[in-house]
Amino acid sequence: MYLVTDSGLAGGRSLEDIVTEAVAGGVTMVQLREKNLGTREFIELAVRLKSTLKRSGVPLIINDRVDVALASDADGVHLGQSDMPCTTARRLLGPDRIIGLSVENFEQIEEANRLDVDYIGISPVFATPTKTDTAMPFGLDGLARAVRMSVHPTVAIGGMNEGTAAETIARGTDGIAVVSAIVTVASPREAASRLLKIIDDERRV
Amino acid sequence: MYLVTDSGLAGGRSLEDIVTEAVAGGVTMVQLREKNLGTREFIELAVRLKSTLKRSGVPLIINDRVDVALASDADGVHLGQSDMPCTTARRLLGPDRIIGLSVENFEQIEEANRLDVDYIGISPVFATPTKTDTAMPFGLDGLARAVRMSVHPTVAIGGMNEGTAAETIARGTDGIAVVSAIVTVASPREAASRLLKIIDDERRV
Repeated sequence: MYLVTDSGLAGGRSLEDIVTEAVAGGVTMVQLREKNLGTREFIELAVRLKSTLKRSGVPLIINDRVDVALASDADGVHLGQSDMPCTTARRLLGPDRIIGLSVENFEQIEEANRLDVDYIGISPVFATPTKTDTAMPFGLDGLARAVRMSVHPTVAIGGMNEGTAAETIARGTDGIAVVSAIVTVASPREAASRLLKIIDDERRV
Repeated sequence: MYLVTDSGLAGGRSLEDIVTEAVAGGVTMVQLREKNLGTREFIELAVRLKSTLKRSGVPLIINDRVDVALASDADGVHLGQSDMPCTTARRLLGPDRIIGLSVENFEQIEEANRLDVDYIGISPVFATPTKTDTAMPFGLDGLARAVRMSVHPTVAIGGMNEGTAAETIARGTDGIAVVSAIVTVASPREAASRLLKIIDDERRV
């Protein structure tokens, strides 16, 4: 269960608090996505989140910005198709840091199969209001095909919530990435905990 | 004579053409400043400019983005006070790449004196329409004081044009940084050439 944070959605609450709660509820990976912060503020926030996550062992992934990941000693980056090419990012980050790549169609999954990435984000599975620049949704059948095609672990992104988690996990994806279903609710801890239960129940089927 | 480029000001002309002309007119350093490009496009543009500049030996400096500088093998970065801290940038870029730092007041010049940077940008000397987020202008007397205070070479930024270049150089600054006076004119080459003559004439005084 992969939390994608966005301080624009946090509604004035601190991201550290949301992340701490979400991890207590069972989140196992955190991505920091900030499109409107200056570089210094972005780094400072990443350093604070890294420190928040330290005891839990949950990795911190930085969206897009390899400079911020290096400066904050984050665990890796998540790259979109218009971000830095994966090969360049691997060269700058070294062999050990995590690189995730968003794929928006089946061609990009084939390309990703030839790249040194640690997971791919199938994006989006469903249409979603938190990202407006996304490609045509894969849908559940598309997701199942994507999971079969990929040599890398897959994370389903886009429209993941308590209503969609079970059917998504049933298609074989390794993880689901959640934004608003955890960030925008009153109790991120309870939301994460309920989602985790849905995932675990589905996995036991 | 330090050209700061901005494709938003280029009016549809290619930055490569503007830079080629400006270098032919006498520009000795080029900074690429892009606040609205995706990372991949930014890197691709930097790689093209680096290739454009290769034969001239003129260094390419990337504004703010250490990741773009590393990915494009640029010659250095120019950092503002809200960009990556200089010490972190030096660690990521190594000892040989150029780091420039914008300073907006005398306190920041004292701080910069203790930092491993290659030059400071005195910003702004005059009020300017191309940057709207800038601090109170130094003015010519402030520039002269800044130049005396700094242990690093200085570049005057903000309001540099054919009308202000001579009096600016007369205050002892090592260079002037020009944006619109070269980027927005019909012939960047002639504009650069006229500015260079003004600088050289003033230096001979």
